[in-house]
Amino acid sequence: MTQPVVNFSAGPSLLPAAIMPHIQADLVNFKGSGMGVAEISHRSPLWESRLAEIFGLLRTALRVPDSHEVLLIQGGATLQFSMVPLNLASPGARVDYLVTGRWAENAAKEAARVGRDPHVAARAFDAIPRDLDLSPDAAYVHYTSNNTVIGTEFFHIPEVGATPLVCDASSDILSRPFDIGAHALVYAGAQKNLGPAGLCVVIVRRDLLDGAADPVPTLLRYGVYAKNDSMYNTPPVLAIHMLGHVLSWVLEQGGAEEMERRAIARSSLLYSAIDALPHFQGNVATPDRSRMNVTFRLTDEALEERFIHEAEAAGFCFIRGHRSTGGVRVSLYNAMPLHDVQRFVHFMEDFSARA
Amino acid sequence: MTQPVVNFSAGPSLLPAAIMPHIQADLVNFKGSGMGVAEISHRSPLWESRLAEIFGLLRTALRVPDSHEVLLIQGGATLQFSMVPLNLASPGARVDYLVTGRWAENAAKEAARVGRDPHVAARAFDAIPRDLDLSPDAAYVHYTSNNTVIGTEFFHIPEVGATPLVCDASSDILSRPFDIGAHALVYAGAQKNLGPAGLCVVIVRRDLLDGAADPVPTLLRYGVYAKNDSMYNTPPVLAIHMLGHVLSWVLEQGGAEEMERRAIARSSLLYSAIDALPHFQGNVATPDRSRMNVTFRLTDEALEERFIHEAEAAGFCFIRGHRSTGGVRVSLYNAMPLHDVQRFVHFMEDFSARA
Repeated sequence: MTQPVVNFSAGPSLLPAAIMPHIQADLVNFKGSGMGVAEISHRSPLWESRLAEIFGLLRTALRVPDSHEVLLIQGGATLQFSMVPLNLASPGARVDYLVTGRWAENAAKEAARVGRDPHVAARAFDAIPRDLDLSPDAAYVHYTSNNTVIGTEFFHIPEVGATPLVCDASSDILSRPFDIGAHALVYAGAQKNLGPAGLCVVIVRRDLLDGAADPVPTLLRYGVYAKNDSMYNTPPVLAIHMLGHVLSWVLEQGGAEEMERRAIARSSLLYSAIDALPHFQGNVATPDRSRMNVTFRLTDEALEERFIHEAEAAGFCFIRGHRSTGGVRVSLYNAMPLHDVQRFVHFMEDFSARA
Repeated sequence: MTQPVVNFSAGPSLLPAAIMPHIQADLVNFKGSGMGVAEISHRSPLWESRLAEIFGLLRTALRVPDSHEVLLIQGGATLQFSMVPLNLASPGARVDYLVTGRWAENAAKEAARVGRDPHVAARAFDAIPRDLDLSPDAAYVHYTSNNTVIGTEFFHIPEVGATPLVCDASSDILSRPFDIGAHALVYAGAQKNLGPAGLCVVIVRRDLLDGAADPVPTLLRYGVYAKNDSMYNTPPVLAIHMLGHVLSWVLEQGGAEEMERRAIARSSLLYSAIDALPHFQGNVATPDRSRMNVTFRLTDEALEERFIHEAEAAGFCFIRGHRSTGGVRVSLYNAMPLHDVQRFVHFMEDFSARA
């Protein structure tokens, strides 16, 4: 291939290229120990100091207020679909969900599965809902800040009064400054903006840590993680270490503000092309367009297939939309260089001229 | 340091040195795709073919019979302490546990936490119990094939009649031929003999896959993993990929038989030194000595501290016993070269002569 490929995967997704040589080196010799980072005891000072450093990086990069604890949990965002209701609501309790996409819907269903009473306080896919039908007695309100499949994003924090607010921020965490303190709990699977798959960052108000009672399994209780520095059992050491490298890179680049500036630059460039060029049309309401997952269709299905095939042949990978929606999806997480988006826009322009 | 360090960690632990260059390369260019293995979509043919290959390697290396399904689950062995009772026993059901160590004890306690009725069918720490007080109506019997903390190992399969037998094989899986078919379920956290932390291999008889009912969370149901090739949600791609490299290495070396030959060679050498040298004494009954975790004490505590300090200074890492037992623990998993054990034995001989 003459040109390097461009990895537009929705997750697991591109990591910052600059961190990879460090990870390769640490795999065989971590901090001069002569041992690889995936091979050392998690009870060693070598690891404990690294873990403390990473908790510090998380608090700094995400501006976590003192009121909140940071936890590292396996099982991805999907396990949080279970843990949130099990820890923040009693059996049978009413819990509100803003259903704005596939994952939000799954989260609501899971609350029912574990024996809580989910209420759909809003339901909209191609635009972010403004009118919320909130329950007066909800244990919490859950929303998804960025909808990876359909391509919408909340640019405001939903107004829910005194009810604890829970956010699944898996696909836009650390892509912009975000008010953690306005939330009771924020969680994010790592595999988009934070690191490799196999790790979820959970930030929870300290007064909510101990809400789970028997028979909730030990590893599904936030308090167990909080009391044990997220090392009640062996943590996924390598994934956490890689998260640390991603966080250092984000901070070196200028933190959440700089990530936002870049996210706006990348997504504006691509949305402008979609709006300007014939044959392309965006999927969702313009003000709610996600900066992370740009989704669009072509004017007919045959042209769309041709576009996807030619793009893939030109080295633009993973642009086929989610199997539930079809169309095209281009994911632009923090690690995506602007020049790769420029290359893709040139490809679109060329395709449009030929189509 | 003039000599390379020797990593005797009990887990996460040494990986085969030969696989590390492959993992380093795959981190930036997986199968010539131009993308790193941790950065590709888990729904891509690139990953799906790799995953299928790894399931094949697991079935071959572990000789999994057709009656059993292989699952890859996050949360380590500790999450299995919850999942086994939730999937294999009804609420309130009697479940039997052979309590032969710290982790076996934790497993039994967790069965109670999730609402089952654990019965201690045997309890012994410094020797493997032969007399079992089995319940006639137990939903299963659970045992731990190797006790990482105290250093004993089952070299026979407990006789439990028709009751389903469950084995936590985290710390000796693939260290010898093992009759999976004699078990209803075998599970093993990866971070000792199989790969990096953050992954658990679960092998379960197909007729037992669908025993979990509401309100068991989705990700705690074996059937969900079986129906989705362990990809109901995003799997820990990098950890699974590394597991694949470890399995290929084991098979290239000669498989479970060769791993057993090496485990006997390593552990015999070390136990012979413990028995022959003054100042050292083993902790457990000789016939039940673990080949994976060799534990011993020195004749007095001051000498023990001196031994540990001098050994660490000489580059022998992570030999301090578990905080619950004290003493010395030397972990000798599959990746440990015999010559490193020889070096350690020479160090013991030298220390003994000077002590």
